[in-house]
Amino acid sequence: MSEAQFTLPRGMKDIDPEEMSRRIWLTDKIRQELWNYGFQMLEPSPVENLETLEAKSGPAVRDEIYWFKDKAERNLGLRFDLTVGMTRMVANRFDLPEPIKISCIGGVWRYDEPQFARYRYHTQWDAEIYGVADPSADAEIIALGSDILESVGLKDHLVKISNRKLVEGFLRGLGIQSQNDLDLLIRIVDKLGKIGSEQAEREFTRAGLSKDKVKRILGFADIGGDPDKVLGELESKLPKGEMIHQGFKELSGTVDMIESLGKKEKIRIDLGIVRGISYYDGTVFEAYDRDGEDVGAIFGGGRFDKLSKIYGKRDMPATGVAGGFERLMLSLERKDLFPDIQQHPQVFVVTVNETVWNEAVKTVQLLRSQGIRTDYDLKQRPLGKQFEYADSLKVRVSLVLGPREIKEGSVRLKNMKTGEEKSVKLSSVVDQTRKALQ
Amino acid sequence: MSEAQFTLPRGMKDIDPEEMSRRIWLTDKIRQELWNYGFQMLEPSPVENLETLEAKSGPAVRDEIYWFKDKAERNLGLRFDLTVGMTRMVANRFDLPEPIKISCIGGVWRYDEPQFARYRYHTQWDAEIYGVADPSADAEIIALGSDILESVGLKDHLVKISNRKLVEGFLRGLGIQSQNDLDLLIRIVDKLGKIGSEQAEREFTRAGLSKDKVKRILGFADIGGDPDKVLGELESKLPKGEMIHQGFKELSGTVDMIESLGKKEKIRIDLGIVRGISYYDGTVFEAYDRDGEDVGAIFGGGRFDKLSKIYGKRDMPATGVAGGFERLMLSLERKDLFPDIQQHPQVFVVTVNETVWNEAVKTVQLLRSQGIRTDYDLKQRPLGKQFEYADSLKVRVSLVLGPREIKEGSVRLKNMKTGEEKSVKLSSVVDQTRKALQ
Repeated sequence: MSEAQFTLPRGMKDIDPEEMSRRIWLTDKIRQELWNYGFQMLEPSPVENLETLEAKSGPAVRDEIYWFKDKAERNLGLRFDLTVGMTRMVANRFDLPEPIKISCIGGVWRYDEPQFARYRYHTQWDAEIYGVADPSADAEIIALGSDILESVGLKDHLVKISNRKLVEGFLRGLGIQSQNDLDLLIRIVDKLGKIGSEQAEREFTRAGLSKDKVKRILGFADIGGDPDKVLGELESKLPKGEMIHQGFKELSGTVDMIESLGKKEKIRIDLGIVRGISYYDGTVFEAYDRDGEDVGAIFGGGRFDKLSKIYGKRDMPATGVAGGFERLMLSLERKDLFPDIQQHPQVFVVTVNETVWNEAVKTVQLLRSQGIRTDYDLKQRPLGKQFEYADSLKVRVSLVLGPREIKEGSVRLKNMKTGEEKSVKLSSVVDQTRKALQ
Repeated sequence: MSEAQFTLPRGMKDIDPEEMSRRIWLTDKIRQELWNYGFQMLEPSPVENLETLEAKSGPAVRDEIYWFKDKAERNLGLRFDLTVGMTRMVANRFDLPEPIKISCIGGVWRYDEPQFARYRYHTQWDAEIYGVADPSADAEIIALGSDILESVGLKDHLVKISNRKLVEGFLRGLGIQSQNDLDLLIRIVDKLGKIGSEQAEREFTRAGLSKDKVKRILGFADIGGDPDKVLGELESKLPKGEMIHQGFKELSGTVDMIESLGKKEKIRIDLGIVRGISYYDGTVFEAYDRDGEDVGAIFGGGRFDKLSKIYGKRDMPATGVAGGFERLMLSLERKDLFPDIQQHPQVFVVTVNETVWNEAVKTVQLLRSQGIRTDYDLKQRPLGKQFEYADSLKVRVSLVLGPREIKEGSVRLKNMKTGEEKSVKLSSVVDQTRKALQ
């Protein structure tokens, strides 16, 4: 049996202790902000019936997800986002008063080609509001997203906002009518930032559009900037029509509400933002680190008013936001924004010889019971080896116990950074250790 | 499309906000104890190559897990425990000094028949020590498990301990030599508590054992009780032999170390404890709520000295412990041991009419920025409806803002439990709200 078998499947990864420290810190920060905003955490099942995952997107989604037959020959799939499961969870819950504000932090699986800072399994935070048609809800989730970034120190970010009704109305104005064609073109617009306008031009042309129409779409997607300025000019720039009018109303309403929430300086209009996923049908947005747009959107989302009706009997407008942990962590690492978070034990209890073992272990257990992260040498090695190991654990304090210390009812407390040592009464070892750790 | 399609696959479940509150509380408690004991958290990939999952148990494991072919026709599987992945992670990491103390909290998938408080997806906490052959490591993880139960309030528990070498040595002494036969018989012993001795007798007989041998095995599995008493008699009760001698040494060594750790009153010897999983080869144990053994083991584990050699070049003795969240939660719920943990917003800001909207939202954002969980009515409904909604959220404080309050620079603070109301200056709203929430 060759060793190579025990590598990981393509696109999968393990999380080592250093990364896990950061994830735990990040989870706590994000959860605190979700709670501050009145969202309650829950979690939909990671495994769904394939029908559930296909309900909105159709069987084409099979190419992009992990799905398989279980032993009863039933088609199952791993969740590819959290929105579908959360929507399924509330779609028949007539007992829940509106608005329903729920959130989740959890893993999702996508069978796409692994790319920079993106794996086939990654962690998302997600917040959804059901039951509010008003742009107040879109503004709320955008403000939430921005405050999540603020709370982890990524203050210099921008949220780019648009509305699906604007782009769809615009494309319909160009004579594109079938939903398939619209979806295809919207997906090309969605890729614009990544593939560039030349490649996009080729793809539009391949989709059957005339040079003039391609130019007009690229011009449309290029509209953007400061909300006051753009909104003032937008109505005159766009063709008339009910859908465009509605999109404009939603967009400007969202901007107004974001201003109330004190977040106006964080947003820009950008009609090139459309989001690739097909369930969006109103306001859409994506957030970027201003110094690191190459990482991609740090969070994104939008309105999906028709989704809950697909999963149940309860017809509710909805809007939501989700962000990937991996990209956010990359942005924070680049800017060195993670605090010094360590999982290492803080204290190591060193035994001079085996006669003091019982007393040493008692001290270990005492410190642990007081919430001090404490370790000792389970291998019961000689003194030098114990210090070596304690060093490798990066403990800040060592407590040395020998026969003499036991006789005196004391312990030698060593500050591992300064090298300073002092004798400390066993009766005050907790307080003295706490003091040394400060 | 019928609605029934959007149910969950058999054995899967969603986690609602109430359960999620408890899980978050539990995760924090367990993690704190893991850290106190010097374990560092990490997480192996949830998806593994099938070869990795089969490495120890052979292809038979396919019947008990979720596995499938990916789009490149490669066999993958969802992890069925955390031990395999954690062992794979460290098995070639020669840079890590011993002992390696690592832990994980994560979901695992098993394709077994859903049973009481057990789903096909459940959450485990897991702690492993690599590199220590001494029973000090087994004692450490047993003490950790016991302290985890103490920290969540489940003080009245027992850890039943045995050793695989004892049962294997005993069975070999009865003339059973092939590993297959040994594994089969050990699995029957493992089920004894669940199926009862009559059913076990039938299964032993079906496995080809004589009446006399069945009786002797049942007698062996019945040995147990207070460690001092049992260990004193055990050597005389068991046949001689190197394997039994070694097992006895490990068992009594573990008991001694557990005494040092201050946990002796929590343990019992029970030779009926063998654990079903095939990688165990030394000390094994299971913990039970003394008032709720019917829930099953709340945690369990043991020594698996040969596993890391299977996954890599680093040959390390190892021992570990794991517990399921679902059973632990059930035990805590039965005894009403969960504290009153709520995710609900604490404060609701009520607007008398739309003219005060901007000021209200400003107050909401101020409170949120101070870590106070605050909500307001995104649907902008009339006063009565707002209070109704605030009630449904179980907020403890409402802040009412109307034109008169704005003029006075104040807000009406209403204690939702007592009904008391008072006027509070907007400039001190954070302090006054905090006070009301105490």
